[in-house]
Amino acid sequence: MAENGSLSHFLETAVDAAKRAGETIRRGFYQTKNVEHKGQVDLVTETDKACEDLIFNHLQQHYPEHKFIGEETTAACGTMELTDSPTWIVDPLDGTTNFVHGFPFVCVSIGLTIGKVPAVGVVYNPILDELFTAIRGKGAFLNGKPIKVSSQTELVKSLLATEVGTKRDKSTVDATTNRINGLLFEVRSLRMSGSCALNLCGIACGRLDLFYELGFGGPWDVAGGALIVEEAGGLVYDPSGKDFDITSQRVAASNPHLKGAFVKVLGQSV
Amino acid sequence: MAENGSLSHFLETAVDAAKRAGETIRRGFYQTKNVEHKGQVDLVTETDKACEDLIFNHLQQHYPEHKFIGEETTAACGTMELTDSPTWIVDPLDGTTNFVHGFPFVCVSIGLTIGKVPAVGVVYNPILDELFTAIRGKGAFLNGKPIKVSSQTELVKSLLATEVGTKRDKSTVDATTNRINGLLFEVRSLRMSGSCALNLCGIACGRLDLFYELGFGGPWDVAGGALIVEEAGGLVYDPSGKDFDITSQRVAASNPHLKGAFVKVLGQSV
Repeated sequence: MAENGSLSHFLETAVDAAKRAGETIRRGFYQTKNVEHKGQVDLVTETDKACEDLIFNHLQQHYPEHKFIGEETTAACGTMELTDSPTWIVDPLDGTTNFVHGFPFVCVSIGLTIGKVPAVGVVYNPILDELFTAIRGKGAFLNGKPIKVSSQTELVKSLLATEVGTKRDKSTVDATTNRINGLLFEVRSLRMSGSCALNLCGIACGRLDLFYELGFGGPWDVAGGALIVEEAGGLVYDPSGKDFDITSQRVAASNPHLKGAFVKVLGQSV
Repeated sequence: MAENGSLSHFLETAVDAAKRAGETIRRGFYQTKNVEHKGQVDLVTETDKACEDLIFNHLQQHYPEHKFIGEETTAACGTMELTDSPTWIVDPLDGTTNFVHGFPFVCVSIGLTIGKVPAVGVVYNPILDELFTAIRGKGAFLNGKPIKVSSQTELVKSLLATEVGTKRDKSTVDATTNRINGLLFEVRSLRMSGSCALNLCGIACGRLDLFYELGFGGPWDVAGGALIVEEAGGLVYDPSGKDFDITSQRVAASNPHLKGAFVKVLGQSV
């Protein structure tokens, strides 16, 4: 454990880093962006990289003995390994496509694991100025006010979120739209916002009732949001219903009432 | 033409009405809502009705000789007829499902037609405090600043918005997901925000490049936003590529560069 050891100190430092990165994101949001292509439909911007540097420098200054896993660093330096050491898992800019297009669902996502267990989560949308935070065992908050998952018990009254991802091979796209087809007969409506971390926070504050995504970028998309869901009284699980694995690029989330029915309708399609 | 006859007077009065209704929406946004069901997955709230009354009373006070078409009134009183008289077409709360769930894409939409031609458009999202306005021939604005559609020329770099609507019969759902399947091979990504009027405004300010929707509620969903798109330099058309018909419950919108390619990929599916 670090010198400045309490979880609330860790949270405070992470919020500080998220707000500074958020300022950089906000400044860039309406400007013309210099866009590099990772793949045909994925994007990475200068802002991504600047924000990751900023966050890691800030955290490293406070906690030099901690480990760090970040989207941009991993993309540049290859695989990361999650150990028992305190590890900051960071997506400096989740919703990069939204950022490039000026669609207001963008965020900084920061999660801290200790003994591989999420201990602190911060997700900050600097455009809507919404800061979601959680410490394990201490509840979840939106701009300092406690939040909880929806109390919905029926799929047919549930608002579902998912994403279409970035892969465009025929079998992935067919599986994506077939899954959506089946779900549309079961739920009230469907939203796609373009940010995995903000979808998790949508579950945490009850705006959304159901969320799943397959094949997203990596643990940085979920490390902050998953704890926020759990601390808001929700469940985070593999879309098959099995235990959530932060390294699997598969996630589902809902309140406890809806899990069984949701996993059932996701069924063989995941 | 009315006594207080200029279009800028009409706009001013409409903005006033939208802001007042917006205040009612904002107050209700985080409260528990009393929900009535229009259909299995469509919703109407007390706030809808209160806002429509508020807007119509405000407009009628200023322009007693004008006609009025509103979502709730039409639902209650049967069909509406669009004549050459100055006619206010109002959706007091577009994105009712979002409102009920607390998802922040909700808006007031107000359009004025004169000689059946849109003359004034106002779309106001009170949660994000975004006010979109247009007067025919005078440009489009977001919170008073001029906006324009994106300059994107390639489908593969375009962000597409659509909605899954409220019908859940098998042929509609299959057509919806088949259409999305085909489009995913052509565009960058897909967003679903749950508000037709805000999707049009997303096109107008360049956050979105492509939008289509089939089978939405009525002319109140598009009367304000369609003019805002056109005044931002965009095109509003039938998804088949034919002329837009405000009464048809079918709409597509984009910048002028993308129309041809978009209509082509929508193809036989619309």
